[in-house]
Amino acid sequence: MSLDYKFEGWLGHDPSSAKGKMQWGFFEPKEWEETDVDIKISHCGICGTDLHNLRSGWGPTIYPCCVGHEIVGNAIRVGSKVEGIHIGDRVGVGAQCDSCCERDCEECSSGNENYCPRKWIGTYNAIHKNGGKSYGGYATYNRSPSRFVFKIPDAIESKHAAPMLCAGITTYAPLKRNNCGPGTKVGIIGFGGLGHFGLMWAKALGAEVTVISRKSDKKDDAFEMGATKFIATAEEENWAIRNAGSLNMIFSILSSSKLPYPEYLSLLCKDGTFIQFGVPEDGPLTIPAISLVMKRVKMTGSLIGSPSEIREMLQFAAENVIKPWVKELPMKDANQAIVDMTDGKARYRYVLVN
Amino acid sequence: MSLDYKFEGWLGHDPSSAKGKMQWGFFEPKEWEETDVDIKISHCGICGTDLHNLRSGWGPTIYPCCVGHEIVGNAIRVGSKVEGIHIGDRVGVGAQCDSCCERDCEECSSGNENYCPRKWIGTYNAIHKNGGKSYGGYATYNRSPSRFVFKIPDAIESKHAAPMLCAGITTYAPLKRNNCGPGTKVGIIGFGGLGHFGLMWAKALGAEVTVISRKSDKKDDAFEMGATKFIATAEEENWAIRNAGSLNMIFSILSSSKLPYPEYLSLLCKDGTFIQFGVPEDGPLTIPAISLVMKRVKMTGSLIGSPSEIREMLQFAAENVIKPWVKELPMKDANQAIVDMTDGKARYRYVLVN
Repeated sequence: MSLDYKFEGWLGHDPSSAKGKMQWGFFEPKEWEETDVDIKISHCGICGTDLHNLRSGWGPTIYPCCVGHEIVGNAIRVGSKVEGIHIGDRVGVGAQCDSCCERDCEECSSGNENYCPRKWIGTYNAIHKNGGKSYGGYATYNRSPSRFVFKIPDAIESKHAAPMLCAGITTYAPLKRNNCGPGTKVGIIGFGGLGHFGLMWAKALGAEVTVISRKSDKKDDAFEMGATKFIATAEEENWAIRNAGSLNMIFSILSSSKLPYPEYLSLLCKDGTFIQFGVPEDGPLTIPAISLVMKRVKMTGSLIGSPSEIREMLQFAAENVIKPWVKELPMKDANQAIVDMTDGKARYRYVLVN
Repeated sequence: MSLDYKFEGWLGHDPSSAKGKMQWGFFEPKEWEETDVDIKISHCGICGTDLHNLRSGWGPTIYPCCVGHEIVGNAIRVGSKVEGIHIGDRVGVGAQCDSCCERDCEECSSGNENYCPRKWIGTYNAIHKNGGKSYGGYATYNRSPSRFVFKIPDAIESKHAAPMLCAGITTYAPLKRNNCGPGTKVGIIGFGGLGHFGLMWAKALGAEVTVISRKSDKKDDAFEMGATKFIATAEEENWAIRNAGSLNMIFSILSSSKLPYPEYLSLLCKDGTFIQFGVPEDGPLTIPAISLVMKRVKMTGSLIGSPSEIREMLQFAAENVIKPWVKELPMKDANQAIVDMTDGKARYRYVLVN
């Protein structure tokens, strides 16, 4: 079958591409299988992971690499073995586009495909089971296995749905798993794309949310989104002592190992949970054992969400009218957008639009 | 009231005391209150914490200091306000001898006195609520508030009960709290006083236990105590890869920050729990964020146990005939005993006997 559309996108050819030097070009999607969906991309969010990958920050990237894993668009080709998706449907793809999906895989068979230990296939910079390479959403089209293609509820605009597929689910899943609800006091360290989602989900789940940031420049935004408290660590003396033991759960979204982890941990009450999202490129976290021992706090991490959690989140977002703060930018400006993202200018998510 | 007995014990006068230079001498116990119990000490276990304190390893110690917080003996004086303990009873005291005990303390009022944030009074090297200093069990007598004095079940010999009061409860409490039972696969890193208790409790609770040690010299002991697997990390190539994802829960009892934490964490399966007991003097733990993120493992700590957990443990030990491996040594040989303990010679707990 010869297609009447071409896969083109912004390609990183080496680590310098992360500095706004991606080049537009064609790429060859994985060989078609009847379980696949081709998507005409309308929107793609810009995630911090895109930058890590463009610059080979987490290990050597397979260049050329087209990043972007907050993809929304319309299904324009649907394999004969695909269930529940039809040509024309508005659909999305997140950070993972396939897993082993074998019945004898404990994770895949129990709906935890995002922890599949055998084949965790990223939406870009990965090799599909059939040997093809995966390419992301800073592009015209995307081809992904249908198990990881999600229908977008009508109530959610595409520009809002796109960032939900990575930033959204990454924060939604651990809140639900850790029983966030009325009475829970959540702290958000790192108030950006993921952080502002965390605030909105937690608020919608009934929790009180404290935003913890270096400076107070995002304070008004945080309160507008529903925060009940804001701590500016660079501006408030003794912030750790004054707020000690005040939180049940902390989301740490920053990607640096040079952070005051002992002070952050001191904000937790007994049996509190510290959830790490970022994977710093600059080294391991340094955690004083005493912080863990004295209040029995738990330090853990979280990795996106499963397909079933993504479906649940989309439903929750539709019902609770969750609207992330996004700025739409034309796809042609992707290079400038990743530079601005690196500089921390996003308030709070850039979404590229075709 | 003039007593017909004197409080005497081994006193550390400076950090060199940890090298076997404690000196025998009198000490003044806290001023008597009618909620107190005086104990004629028969047995006292030697805990690693004793060494940390003698050498001011966790901060300046209040010298002179008499260490020892695995105390068993007979009540020889019982305050008029004490309930449930009578003169002559065989009783014990663990690492904590008091807390604020206020009704408005969330921890004390909920039976979590071991996490009391207001007044956590150690059995030695601490100041009592009435201003007196606390002295431990390398001594003839001990005076402690009765809320933290426990009756020893008849079925448990004193030499076995003593180490249960710190090493025992420290490992028993987190196993119970983390639902250790049939099907649980527990790993024990650091097979000494605490570690061998962890093995015996876990086994009695129905779990399978893997002991993880540098060398294989304790392998026979571990199997004799009920271990199902032994990993000698210094002797087995690729031990981490070959055993990846095989454990649900790991007890890390070593007190060093220079350990292969990424490899240890890799032994856990998804949602596994890593429990840190030791508080290294040589710096914080260095934990790669990726270890937490990729398998959602939890890192946490644990601090002894509450009075109610101690009572439960003693009952469990009596019913399940738990017998730690101890070596009894005369109280007069305490200095040699702490030197041997430091050198790792204990198999697996020294107990000083008067």
